[in-house]
Amino acid sequence: MAGRIRVSAVPVDVTVGDVERNLGAIRDALGQSARSGPHLIVLPELATSGYVFADQGEAWSCALRADDERLTSLGAALPIETVVVLGFCERDGDTLFNSALVLGAEGVLGCYRKSHLWGTEHRIFDTGPHAGMVVDTPIGRLGVAICYDNEFPELPRRLALSGAQILALPVNWPLVDRPSGEHAPEIVQAMAAARSSRLPTVIADRHGSERGVEWTGGTCVISPDGWLCATPATANTAASTELDLTLDKSIGEFNDLFADRRPELYGDIAVPRIPVRPTSRSEARTHVQ
Amino acid sequence: MAGRIRVSAVPVDVTVGDVERNLGAIRDALGQSARSGPHLIVLPELATSGYVFADQGEAWSCALRADDERLTSLGAALPIETVVVLGFCERDGDTLFNSALVLGAEGVLGCYRKSHLWGTEHRIFDTGPHAGMVVDTPIGRLGVAICYDNEFPELPRRLALSGAQILALPVNWPLVDRPSGEHAPEIVQAMAAARSSRLPTVIADRHGSERGVEWTGGTCVISPDGWLCATPATANTAASTELDLTLDKSIGEFNDLFADRRPELYGDIAVPRIPVRPTSRSEARTHVQ
Repeated sequence: MAGRIRVSAVPVDVTVGDVERNLGAIRDALGQSARSGPHLIVLPELATSGYVFADQGEAWSCALRADDERLTSLGAALPIETVVVLGFCERDGDTLFNSALVLGAEGVLGCYRKSHLWGTEHRIFDTGPHAGMVVDTPIGRLGVAICYDNEFPELPRRLALSGAQILALPVNWPLVDRPSGEHAPEIVQAMAAARSSRLPTVIADRHGSERGVEWTGGTCVISPDGWLCATPATANTAASTELDLTLDKSIGEFNDLFADRRPELYGDIAVPRIPVRPTSRSEARTHVQ
Repeated sequence: MAGRIRVSAVPVDVTVGDVERNLGAIRDALGQSARSGPHLIVLPELATSGYVFADQGEAWSCALRADDERLTSLGAALPIETVVVLGFCERDGDTLFNSALVLGAEGVLGCYRKSHLWGTEHRIFDTGPHAGMVVDTPIGRLGVAICYDNEFPELPRRLALSGAQILALPVNWPLVDRPSGEHAPEIVQAMAAARSSRLPTVIADRHGSERGVEWTGGTCVISPDGWLCATPATANTAASTELDLTLDKSIGEFNDLFADRRPELYGDIAVPRIPVRPTSRSEARTHVQ
C-alpha cells in the first residue's frame, strides 16, 4: 500500500505511577487528533505509566496486559484508517515488558516488546524476542521500535528491508549534553537511519522532567530524506505533517539505496591480523582483506 | 593497540587529469603535515586523478597500478608511525577501480577498492570485492571505506565490529541541497555511524568545484561520540586534532553499544502479512512478528 497519510507525534503529558490519569490524557489526546483519512498517531514510550519508577513494585502497579480493556477500548474512539502506536508497561504472567501497542479502529494490530534495554531497565523489564516489528495496517506497512532500539543501525535497516514504509518510534530520551547548534544525538541517529533507508520516522518523546530526569523533548517527524519535517510548536503539542508512503529507494538519477546494497559482502568476516613489517617501498601488499 | 594519535584530513588541491601535478600537491601536503608521533593522514577520493573525467580514456590516462613507484615512494618521505590513506584511480590489467591506498613509512599496508559506486562510476570502474577494509597499522587497527560506501550502515558497523579503532574515509561529495542550519547529509550519516559504533571517523573531501560539479567541502574529523571535533579553518587547509583510540564501546553507566547488540535477532526474517480484519476490541492479537 502506498499513498499520502497524515502523521502526528504526540508528547502527551504523563504522570509517573498514575495509570488512570495517563489513560485519560491519552484518550483526550486521541480525541483531539481525530480526523478523517489515513492517519498515524505515535505516543511516547511507557505513556501509560511513566518511566522513572520508584521501585519494581511501582512498575508492577502500573502494568497492563496487552488485551486489557482499558487499552483496547482506546481503539473504539478512533476514526477508521487511524492507527495509534502507544508505549505501555506490559505484564504477561510473571514478566514485565517495555512494549508498544499498535491499535486501529478495528482492534489491536500488534504488540512489540523492546529488545534493547537502556540504563537500569533490565532490573524491571525482560527483553523482547524480536528486533523491531513490522505490521500491515490500514495506512500501510508499519515498522515499530522503541527508544534505544533505534540506536542499533541494524534495527531500522532491517525494518525497512522488511517492507516497512514508515517507522513509529515511541521514546523517553533523557537529555544529554550536546555541542551548541546540534540536534540531540538520538535525533542525528534517527535522521541518518531514515535517510539511509528512505524510511520516514515518527518520534514521540517526553517533555519536561520526571523525578529529576530531564527529557530531551525530541518529538518530531523525519522525512525519507532524513530531515526534520515537523516539530512541536510548543513542548506539549503534537508534531504533525503529511507524508507520501512509497517503497521507492532511489537517490539521484543513477542510484537506489537498496539495489546498491552488497549483502553478499556483509557477512561476518575473519578479522585480519596483518603484522606490519619492513617492506621494499616499491613492493605493494595490495587488496588485503 | 590503543593510544593517543594525531589525525589530519587534508583537502589537497586536485587538478582533474593531471596526475603529475596532483602527485606533487600530495607530496607537498604530506611534507607540510610531517611530525613525529602516531599520525593518521587522510586525503580525498581519487586525489591523484580528479573525479569528473571527460571520458573513459581520460580515466585510463590517469590510472596507476597500486605498486606504481610514484605512489609507493610517497611512503619514503613519511615519518615513522605515520599512516596515509590516499584515494587514487587504480588500474589492474584491463580494469579500473576507485581505490584507496594505505601507506606507511615501511611501505604499502593495503589497498581497498570501493564497493558501492555512485552516479555513473559504473561506466568507468569495476566494483571492489569487499565492503570496506580493516588493516593493522603502526597507529592501530584502521578501517577504510570510500565515499558512498559509508552511506550503507552495514559498512562502518562491520568495520567497527571487526576491530577497527578509527575509520579513514576519502570522499568526493557533490554538493546537494539541505535545510538551513543542517550539516551535509553525508556528514549526518557519518556522525550517526561514528556514534552508534564509537568509531571516530576522518573524512577528506574536495573543495571548490570541478567541471561544473560543486563539492561539499565536508572535510572533518568526527569523534567517537559522533560530534564534529575538527573542521578546516579555510577550505583548503587540513582538519587536525588528537584522538584517543580505544575499543571501549560503553555509553553511560549501564550500557555498551556492542554488548547490547542482539545479533541473534538481526537475521533476515519472513515479512509478516497480517490482514487487518474486524476483531473484538478486547481481543488482542499480540506479539506479531
